[in-house]
Amino acid sequence: MRLGIDLGGTSVKAALCEEHGKVLAKKSIPTRADDAETLCADMKQIALSLCRGMGVSLAQITGIGIGAPGSVDKASCTLKFGPNLGLRDVCFAEAFLPEFHCAVRIENDANCAALGEATVGAARDAKNMLMVTLGTGVGGGIIIDGKLYTGSNGIAGEMGHLVIREDGEPCGCGRKGCLEAYASATAFVKFAERALAAGRESSLQAQAGHLDAKQICDAVDAGDPLACELFEQYCKDLSCGLASYINIFQPECIVLGGGLAGYGEKLLEPLRRLTLSQTFRADANDTELVCASLGNDAGMIGAAML
Amino acid sequence: MRLGIDLGGTSVKAALCEEHGKVLAKKSIPTRADDAETLCADMKQIALSLCRGMGVSLAQITGIGIGAPGSVDKASCTLKFGPNLGLRDVCFAEAFLPEFHCAVRIENDANCAALGEATVGAARDAKNMLMVTLGTGVGGGIIIDGKLYTGSNGIAGEMGHLVIREDGEPCGCGRKGCLEAYASATAFVKFAERALAAGRESSLQAQAGHLDAKQICDAVDAGDPLACELFEQYCKDLSCGLASYINIFQPECIVLGGGLAGYGEKLLEPLRRLTLSQTFRADANDTELVCASLGNDAGMIGAAML
Repeated sequence: MRLGIDLGGTSVKAALCEEHGKVLAKKSIPTRADDAETLCADMKQIALSLCRGMGVSLAQITGIGIGAPGSVDKASCTLKFGPNLGLRDVCFAEAFLPEFHCAVRIENDANCAALGEATVGAARDAKNMLMVTLGTGVGGGIIIDGKLYTGSNGIAGEMGHLVIREDGEPCGCGRKGCLEAYASATAFVKFAERALAAGRESSLQAQAGHLDAKQICDAVDAGDPLACELFEQYCKDLSCGLASYINIFQPECIVLGGGLAGYGEKLLEPLRRLTLSQTFRADANDTELVCASLGNDAGMIGAAML
Repeated sequence: MRLGIDLGGTSVKAALCEEHGKVLAKKSIPTRADDAETLCADMKQIALSLCRGMGVSLAQITGIGIGAPGSVDKASCTLKFGPNLGLRDVCFAEAFLPEFHCAVRIENDANCAALGEATVGAARDAKNMLMVTLGTGVGGGIIIDGKLYTGSNGIAGEMGHLVIREDGEPCGCGRKGCLEAYASATAFVKFAERALAAGRESSLQAQAGHLDAKQICDAVDAGDPLACELFEQYCKDLSCGLASYINIFQPECIVLGGGLAGYGEKLLEPLRRLTLSQTFRADANDTELVCASLGNDAGMIGAAML
């Protein structure tokens, strides 16, 4: 049996899983990241508590995986820099001693989510798949031949930092025109706020200044012309990136995750149509576009699979 | 020992290689692609002639690989469609019988070149590398974990068909704004011809209407202001694509091939500078940019390595 721990900014989520990824039990506690010691102690506590709760002896645990928000050093099982946690250089290798004696592995949280979806989620059984998360940023992960691909330095898979418009919208990474600057939930809201500030007529004017992506999606459902126009442009920009990804990777599957993927078929239908018309072999697109199926559990399940 | 055959539009090139890719002998004949039978017979002939010339018995050949210009079906060792050869559905599986009794494999020629460079060329020993060829089009191949990656349907690695400017220059693939439409030698010439037709002053005006990429590079060397401006823009556009590839793949190495790679360090220097400033980890780019080292031999060596 394995333990997967998803270290988030607001909560630490953990799952006890079978070897092939089936979740036997899960538990969540609020994140206390005041210092590394507290965080490590909390993580061990939630792991112990899961095992005790299920009557699983600690010797039965064959591996512990940690999905962490930031840059990690896999060799030393260290979170190098976790801006959202405000922590640097936290080594987890010994955090589970003396109770646990199995290997402890660490990976970026977006990569864990990709591995989770590829193992027991929406892309189950796909050999080659990409995950693209549409949230605050655009993140994701790459699965090649059933395994997480992280490149030669462990930081590959920055799916949001593909430029779709050279010299376009400024991106948080310092470049201009990245997919993230058009296809994140943040960007979706940014374009809406910009249109509202320019005085465009819309049912969304009442929420101007404090919009969220869900409200814009609701306005699309209600037929608001500005919201529909923004959503159309959003799908066009996102499909531009997805079609490039298909031309490069020809994966069996691209899984969309993150907040906007909650829009489900309403998002997938236009994306499939727009992406198909742009891919290299436009007559026969072999890549399936689907939404993530594990929701918030993807990260901890993927971590368990490390 | 292995045989690699590079099936080109103008010549059929073949090499007798050691198991690890060292070329023992090579030979080239003009391509006669009038019909599949002639082509197959010529390919067998060049293979037999190489073996005889080196005193290698046919039983010593452990594998034959073919790099073909077009879409291939690996399972049946068939060239499905080779537009430059004007041939369809040519099965090579039995072409080498009854003399040869080893496995015959086929792969797209750009993928073979990538494999060649990764085996004994500029990216020797790289586990993860990309090849990007700057010729009539922009092609290339992907090596992951030392193996050719061709996706779930065998056609991955269309490195030129990443959009860098949504709604930009029309591309041969039907999309707008692909890297190929900015970074191929054809595109480089297209922009020069466009500037000359618009009446821009330049030493290239004498060649207007029948320019080639080499002439523009020579004008850059001679300090022609228009040529320098075009070359600067070319490097900017190409680096935009390369930086995205680094953010996605974080390979040890990107090998540039094709005609424009012959410009060597003069191309690499601005590309390294421009790419570094755009990658996700701009302070520490782990990906080396180099030019191909096997030239026209890459394809047949890669084919031998299939």
